[in-house]
Amino acid sequence: MNYPHQIEDLITHFGRLPGVGPRTATRFVFHLLNAQDSEVLSFSKHLVHLLNVTKCGHCGAYKDDSELSCKICDDETRKSKGILCIVENYSDLLAIERSQRFDGRYHILGGVLNPLLGIGPDQLDLNKLVRRVKDEKIERVILALNPSVEGDATCSYLKEIFLDLCVVERIGFGIPIGGSLEFVDSQTISTALDNRRLF
Amino acid sequence: MNYPHQIEDLITHFGRLPGVGPRTATRFVFHLLNAQDSEVLSFSKHLVHLLNVTKCGHCGAYKDDSELSCKICDDETRKSKGILCIVENYSDLLAIERSQRFDGRYHILGGVLNPLLGIGPDQLDLNKLVRRVKDEKIERVILALNPSVEGDATCSYLKEIFLDLCVVERIGFGIPIGGSLEFVDSQTISTALDNRRLF
Repeated sequence: MNYPHQIEDLITHFGRLPGVGPRTATRFVFHLLNAQDSEVLSFSKHLVHLLNVTKCGHCGAYKDDSELSCKICDDETRKSKGILCIVENYSDLLAIERSQRFDGRYHILGGVLNPLLGIGPDQLDLNKLVRRVKDEKIERVILALNPSVEGDATCSYLKEIFLDLCVVERIGFGIPIGGSLEFVDSQTISTALDNRRLF
Repeated sequence: MNYPHQIEDLITHFGRLPGVGPRTATRFVFHLLNAQDSEVLSFSKHLVHLLNVTKCGHCGAYKDDSELSCKICDDETRKSKGILCIVENYSDLLAIERSQRFDGRYHILGGVLNPLLGIGPDQLDLNKLVRRVKDEKIERVILALNPSVEGDATCSYLKEIFLDLCVVERIGFGIPIGGSLEFVDSQTISTALDNRRLF
């Protein structure tokens, strides 16, 4: 016996979310079947509102629809620093913001170079990034891309581009704080040894 | 730094689903931010459709809005059996249907008696159930409620009600098929010993 089609359809939608299988999706739907109508309507309404989320024209961060550019780009004290941190996506930006250690501005690439997936310099709109570095007189670029084959290649490519424009740095790699050498993988230890500093 | 309010609001809604914490909810929302607009709109639409799911007037099962009563109640061959299986909720009904071992009809209580939560005979609409047993000339009632304090109490209560109306049975408890005695809890083993049958 099947569920009524409304239930089946919603299970399909929930089942497309990352890490959600048919059993979990079914559990979600039965939870909502027992929820108040107003809760379901509000859920539905806020899903549609998600389509109103816009990106900042400067850095590419998600922003409230009411503003022209995002809070970080609007912050004049940050602008004056002349430092631009390049990240892959919005979640990475938020991770760096949570550290409260960076007070410059950001640029979200939206991905990394990946020839196999057809993602080249044009897809990442690197020309716009170069224009931004020139226009905003950026003196220092911090590459905060993840350490992967594609991330490394993208960093190398960006270094070439910015060679004559500004100082290019990449965030440090090594043992994470709170991590235990015993449980850290060999490649991280190897990188940490390479990155040792005078103490 | 906070997310734009549209993102925050949707994270709140996803976070109310069972077993979903703020991190998982955030992951869901970022997945949808990268999804096609049509997918998000369809998700939202099907959430609203959930409010159209109606319950069968006879047994209380969820049914398609196009039908008057559910498929099981409409099935004349099932009606003729004169057996009524009483379950707590729709998921229990589906579990029994999947076993393909029962060919009578169902009645969904919508809960079990629980004085602490204020759930008494009136909340479960037991008068309607008694009327149904009389009207449909039910000869045999199978109590398929979960073995818990409240489930047991509800079964005892229902047995009293149906004493003069029909035969009352309760589903068997014991070692689950595929289960291993080694890992089954003592109470189940104790019940299984009580429920032993001539072989």
